[in-house]
Amino acid sequence: MTEIVTAAMIIIGDEILSGRTKDRNIGHLADVMTAVGIDLKEVRIVPDEEDEIVTAVNALRARYTYVFTTGGIGPTHDDITADSVSRAFGVPCEYDAKAYAMLEANYASRSMEFTDARKRMARMPRGAGHIDNPVSMAPGFHIGNVYVMAGVPSIFQAMLDNVVPTLKTGAKLLSATIECPFGEGVIGGPLAEIQKRHPDTIIGSYPKYLDGTFRTELVVRARSAEALAAARSEVATMVAGIKAIAKPD
Amino acid sequence: MTEIVTAAMIIIGDEILSGRTKDRNIGHLADVMTAVGIDLKEVRIVPDEEDEIVTAVNALRARYTYVFTTGGIGPTHDDITADSVSRAFGVPCEYDAKAYAMLEANYASRSMEFTDARKRMARMPRGAGHIDNPVSMAPGFHIGNVYVMAGVPSIFQAMLDNVVPTLKTGAKLLSATIECPFGEGVIGGPLAEIQKRHPDTIIGSYPKYLDGTFRTELVVRARSAEALAAARSEVATMVAGIKAIAKPD
Repeated sequence: MTEIVTAAMIIIGDEILSGRTKDRNIGHLADVMTAVGIDLKEVRIVPDEEDEIVTAVNALRARYTYVFTTGGIGPTHDDITADSVSRAFGVPCEYDAKAYAMLEANYASRSMEFTDARKRMARMPRGAGHIDNPVSMAPGFHIGNVYVMAGVPSIFQAMLDNVVPTLKTGAKLLSATIECPFGEGVIGGPLAEIQKRHPDTIIGSYPKYLDGTFRTELVVRARSAEALAAARSEVATMVAGIKAIAKPD
Repeated sequence: MTEIVTAAMIIIGDEILSGRTKDRNIGHLADVMTAVGIDLKEVRIVPDEEDEIVTAVNALRARYTYVFTTGGIGPTHDDITADSVSRAFGVPCEYDAKAYAMLEANYASRSMEFTDARKRMARMPRGAGHIDNPVSMAPGFHIGNVYVMAGVPSIFQAMLDNVVPTLKTGAKLLSATIECPFGEGVIGGPLAEIQKRHPDTIIGSYPKYLDGTFRTELVVRARSAEALAAARSEVATMVAGIKAIAKPD
């Protein structure tokens, strides 16, 4: 079987923790990872504090195949991701010649001053590779298994599009959803029995509370189509059997 | 000065990590914490795996004033939050007599069977207190500084409304926003100087990329109105001064 490939995400930004900005990147990364067969196993949102970023990067890069960060790579004083990731890897954070030249030429072509603030966007850990930014030029970077991208959703998505084709992907987790008109209180017992009989699947139950009653979406996940089909049919049969006798939650 | 009160959030749920469900609770908790003067310092999203939940609960409850969890308290086999939090605190997870009686009476009044699955919702760590659930009855719980709530947003919000009045709140972080028509590349340098001159404030810069140009929202935060006003006026003066000379990013 194809190997399991795992990932974690680190969102760097006081603005998310304060509620000022509502995150739009977690769901996008989760969708993309699922689509290519990489298991997103953990997400952390940390403040713009170097110690916190270093701790998170080192904890997660040691545990997972890939770590993706968003935020903190702009030109201002609170953009400390490049410094923090450099410290996490124990390498200097310095101007990248290629990024510096590219930004310098870009601003020159627009008759704009290449300010010290803008120069900050050319800083990255020594030895890092670029992640192209087709939206606003200033590149993200990758070092080891850590991929550092922008927090602005349109730029993050464009950078991720450039990163994904370079990743090794795993055995895609197949899934099947069974709509259930009853709440978990009704199907919880039999569903647990089905999970026990199908240890090679992950059976999830997701309640929805609508108009004063619960409904449930039952999702079976497996890496083999056979395992998926076997568990799925048992779940469907169970739900059909209950329809006759149970009252909704 | 009022003491600083901190919080962390743990979101328990494979469905968020797979992208199936898009989180709607982080932003709500962040807004509420900011409104009452509690600093949300970290958020972790972890899978439905007991070891992961125990590790996150113990890491965060030791560091922050409060820990809030969402998800995994329903009646199905993948709802393992009560067991995991019990293990984190080293106490047994058992039926809570009050919760059991309340649920039993509720289902009886609706002529519905009190199934083993539904009984699971009465389980909590020994010694835990209830968090009332006005939406669907099954209570959350709190033990030590950890508050365990539902993942369904309408229920989470209702539970949080019951919790907040019981929390000690801190010195509210005041904030002022200055709209800046220029990108960070223009204001990054002078803004860093202002931050240096006002160490008792947190000055954030939030770029927005719209119609091919960058704009910036500059946010000054401080716990004293005086510190806020002083830094705010310097930022506003700086932006006004640049308007005459700079081109937008």
